[in-house]
Amino acid sequence: MERRAYIPQETARRLSLYLRMLRRLRQEKVRIVSSDQIRRFLNVSSVQFRKDLSYFGEFGKRGVGYDVELLAKEIGKILGTDVLHEIILVGVGRLGSALLEYPGFLEFNLKISEAFDRNTRKVGKVCGGVRIRHMRALRQVIKKRNLRIAVLSVPVEFAQEVAEELVSCGIKAILNFAPVNLVLEGDVFVSNADMASELESLVYKLKQKNNNYSLTKKRSIVI
Amino acid sequence: MERRAYIPQETARRLSLYLRMLRRLRQEKVRIVSSDQIRRFLNVSSVQFRKDLSYFGEFGKRGVGYDVELLAKEIGKILGTDVLHEIILVGVGRLGSALLEYPGFLEFNLKISEAFDRNTRKVGKVCGGVRIRHMRALRQVIKKRNLRIAVLSVPVEFAQEVAEELVSCGIKAILNFAPVNLVLEGDVFVSNADMASELESLVYKLKQKNNNYSLTKKRSIVI
Repeated sequence: MERRAYIPQETARRLSLYLRMLRRLRQEKVRIVSSDQIRRFLNVSSVQFRKDLSYFGEFGKRGVGYDVELLAKEIGKILGTDVLHEIILVGVGRLGSALLEYPGFLEFNLKISEAFDRNTRKVGKVCGGVRIRHMRALRQVIKKRNLRIAVLSVPVEFAQEVAEELVSCGIKAILNFAPVNLVLEGDVFVSNADMASELESLVYKLKQKNNNYSLTKKRSIVI
Repeated sequence: MERRAYIPQETARRLSLYLRMLRRLRQEKVRIVSSDQIRRFLNVSSVQFRKDLSYFGEFGKRGVGYDVELLAKEIGKILGTDVLHEIILVGVGRLGSALLEYPGFLEFNLKISEAFDRNTRKVGKVCGGVRIRHMRALRQVIKKRNLRIAVLSVPVEFAQEVAEELVSCGIKAILNFAPVNLVLEGDVFVSNADMASELESLVYKLKQKNNNYSLTKKRSIVI
């Protein structure tokens, strides 16, 4: 199948969304999905869907639909999640332990297989099937297991320093949960799982939609 | 100050990022910020920064920089987070309780002020300063307090059903942590805090950057 080398980031995002839908359909033993179902499930027009797929070949039969199995396989290949990726997690607080037990990662072929914390009381305990190691072992484990992706869930005041350490150990991609902009040298991808910004964005959308949107508690703050 | 009515979503996202930086600078008693500092802090070009600001007026003095205080205030007004927004949370599991205790929300003038769970053993307990209520009280509390924004952190199998209930109670925006695409009637904004998709996107970026990126464990899976 002919594939283009470059796929825009927005398309990649939607591919990820399609893949999730396809996996769900597969679980429900659905074999064929129509453009119309896709539109209803995901609020993505069939034109957009076809355009996104056009980056990596021709799929679907006019008037029939798309083969769920085949399409999931191809999108997985494109996104790189057709193989298992092992990930480390640093910072096993409440959020960190929730992430270790989060069932949604394996569905994407992502597995948090190592977890680290500074707190000696946590070290040695098992959370989500992973034994927590001390931060001292970080470098050795990353190097030995050739890990490249880290989830950062340490308190905000340590995030920058720990991120720098991760990069110095060879980590190339960080999903950062701390509410801070990490500034890192070298070719590292940082994605901010910034819950507050997500909420802020929702507030903004509500505000744009309806200027009469009545706030629960109008309070002027002097900033 | 003259303002345009419509601001693109991507601009709004960056404004949120600028605001976070400005708040941080303010904490550090910085009064003036230059375009160059902005570029270094956020990887946003000064051209982009000026373009984003141009949506709501003229800021900054050539050769001097931007007033941190003033700019933070204006961006807060635009985004709607110059006033406190109260939010409800549904599902006080590990993730839910981490969110209740997350310190990053208040910085954005966002406050989770009500929390709900089905589990009677959790009801009545206090987490992050919020007393957990039973789901039975959901409708009454939302109506009475005129709440519009909800954080959904229930197990994936209940997410759709609880989201529908929230909408029927008057909720207009949902930040969804469950790994599922919610399908909702009416004018509701849904934002997916989808940690697995974020990670998948990082995997994809690494893959694009380096096709030699060596996986920690190459395992073909039959899908």
